[in-house]
Amino acid sequence: MDLSAWVCPLPLRDSPNIVMGHGGGGAMSAELIEHLFLPSFGSAADAELGDSAVFDIGGVRLAFSTDSYVVKPMVFPGGTIGDLAVNGTVNDLAMAGAQPLVMSTAFILEEGTALTDIAGIAKALGRAAHVAGVRLVTGDTKVVDAGHGDGVFINTAGIGIVADGVDINPTRAQVGDVVIVSGDIGVHGVAVMSCREGLEFGTEVRSDCASLNGVVADMIATGVDIHVLRDPTRGGVAATLNEIARASNIGVALVERDLPIPADVRDACGLLGLDPLYVANEGKLIAFVPREDSDRILEAMRGNPLSAGAAVIGECVAEHRGMVVARTALGGNRVVDLPAGEQLPRIC
Amino acid sequence: MDLSAWVCPLPLRDSPNIVMGHGGGGAMSAELIEHLFLPSFGSAADAELGDSAVFDIGGVRLAFSTDSYVVKPMVFPGGTIGDLAVNGTVNDLAMAGAQPLVMSTAFILEEGTALTDIAGIAKALGRAAHVAGVRLVTGDTKVVDAGHGDGVFINTAGIGIVADGVDINPTRAQVGDVVIVSGDIGVHGVAVMSCREGLEFGTEVRSDCASLNGVVADMIATGVDIHVLRDPTRGGVAATLNEIARASNIGVALVERDLPIPADVRDACGLLGLDPLYVANEGKLIAFVPREDSDRILEAMRGNPLSAGAAVIGECVAEHRGMVVARTALGGNRVVDLPAGEQLPRIC
Repeated sequence: MDLSAWVCPLPLRDSPNIVMGHGGGGAMSAELIEHLFLPSFGSAADAELGDSAVFDIGGVRLAFSTDSYVVKPMVFPGGTIGDLAVNGTVNDLAMAGAQPLVMSTAFILEEGTALTDIAGIAKALGRAAHVAGVRLVTGDTKVVDAGHGDGVFINTAGIGIVADGVDINPTRAQVGDVVIVSGDIGVHGVAVMSCREGLEFGTEVRSDCASLNGVVADMIATGVDIHVLRDPTRGGVAATLNEIARASNIGVALVERDLPIPADVRDACGLLGLDPLYVANEGKLIAFVPREDSDRILEAMRGNPLSAGAAVIGECVAEHRGMVVARTALGGNRVVDLPAGEQLPRIC
Repeated sequence: MDLSAWVCPLPLRDSPNIVMGHGGGGAMSAELIEHLFLPSFGSAADAELGDSAVFDIGGVRLAFSTDSYVVKPMVFPGGTIGDLAVNGTVNDLAMAGAQPLVMSTAFILEEGTALTDIAGIAKALGRAAHVAGVRLVTGDTKVVDAGHGDGVFINTAGIGIVADGVDINPTRAQVGDVVIVSGDIGVHGVAVMSCREGLEFGTEVRSDCASLNGVVADMIATGVDIHVLRDPTRGGVAATLNEIARASNIGVALVERDLPIPADVRDACGLLGLDPLYVANEGKLIAFVPREDSDRILEAMRGNPLSAGAAVIGECVAEHRGMVVARTALGGNRVVDLPAGEQLPRIC
């Protein structure tokens, strides 16, 4: 098969080749899916091909999600690639309103990686699965030659069950919804950057990496009609809100001073020239709920230690549909764009 | 977290580090799962952690499987890594007697990989999914720095549904069963080797890479109580038969002259010093069925072009339990061991 015969329809920006930004969860990632993967997959692929899918099998409503994890370094303050591999996939299922039940684990190991390192990562993975209440039921291991991998890459896929009447998806945001975040933002990204070669800056920030299925269960138990849930990972809160604004065709109006940004995250971002709105989180969620139900949801969230810092950060509006606008501390407005690539790659 | 504090319980053979053989699907792969992954995962993992898992969710019997694909080169005679990524996972589900329904796709792309190459691979993947009748419903893309990946790695996970009354698993082989292979063996491995840098030897062999869910459906439709199905991929027919012999605690007696080995595969293996029994297949299956039903099964298989060459190659015996023994052309017997590592790495 002669691959050179394929014509690539991707808007090429600067390169006919893959660049790091294609993995950032921003505009370039979306282009890769829309203009390369979906047309190439053809009729076999669902048009959304999103973070998770919900469908019926034999009358049961299932959610299904997968992610590969390539975070560098593999061990960082507050977690490891093993914790991430569980929590990231559990959260993708939870954001569809599903109760995660089973998970697969597939390792791509680089020749020469220490067995003790792999055991430590596998132990963290097992512990995270235990905490989240998911069973590891099937797996795979591949080995690649030294210099053609990077220690350990992990893929997990998970299956969850969606209760009757639950319909949580990014197209359901409505004018009048409030936007809630479950706690401090920017923490995971800063924690990983703080120990990356060449970037050490001695912060005490630890990753927020956690499985949020318990938080979501508490929220669903209120009986409130939750419209959208999303975990703001790659691309941060900015990418997540832009995706939802486009998918639901509403405007998102943020209030900058209401964003919960810890002082050390703010300091680190200042040092690195980053905007905390674009920094990855691994244990936070964004919720869109009707304004009249927001107190009940906030009360339920604040009762769970993983979302004790829940706060309203904005609302859905009929203006600037498809866009996110933040009211600044000085009273002005600024557009919060979808990031193109990623400020710092390999964050998850 | 200080990973150096972990004690690794793995029998270390020659190295405290990962070597290529750990990815070969033989004894070293099994040791890695048994002595490293399972103890590290702890109570969160199922004891089998096999190629696929079968379980109930909401009263529906599902099969679930995952594999990562790291084949080198990514394009080989008869297929690409994209075809493999679908067919391998579909076949793992089919070998549990499941009808594969949906699949996830997760790409780990190396910075600098040509977008046209990725589009070609994605197109092959989509076409293979269409042929197999599975829907691509969710996905993920990560990018790693140049020199820390190898073009394209793909993980797929799949979900299938298992019909009532179907119980096909590697522990069900019984004395009196015959062993059937669906066609020529060793073809995929030789095809990949034939175009690998430094190994080109100009064979015309093309990979047998194919989804076998249709073959399995034809076999199940006979109503025969099929005991075991397995696709002899990494480690070849030898590894697969050894696994089944151990899992079912029976002996497997092969008849060497009955093994369907094409002349060009035999020639290539002779040139490379390989035993075709240990060479990977990607479009073949091994079946264990009661002797009295073998004609019905063979008839059904021969009616499907993908298993037209189905043949009996041996039987289950009460002797040498847990072992595979081949009767040679000269009338002697030789033990067909579980391979330690892999004769040639990165074959799938």
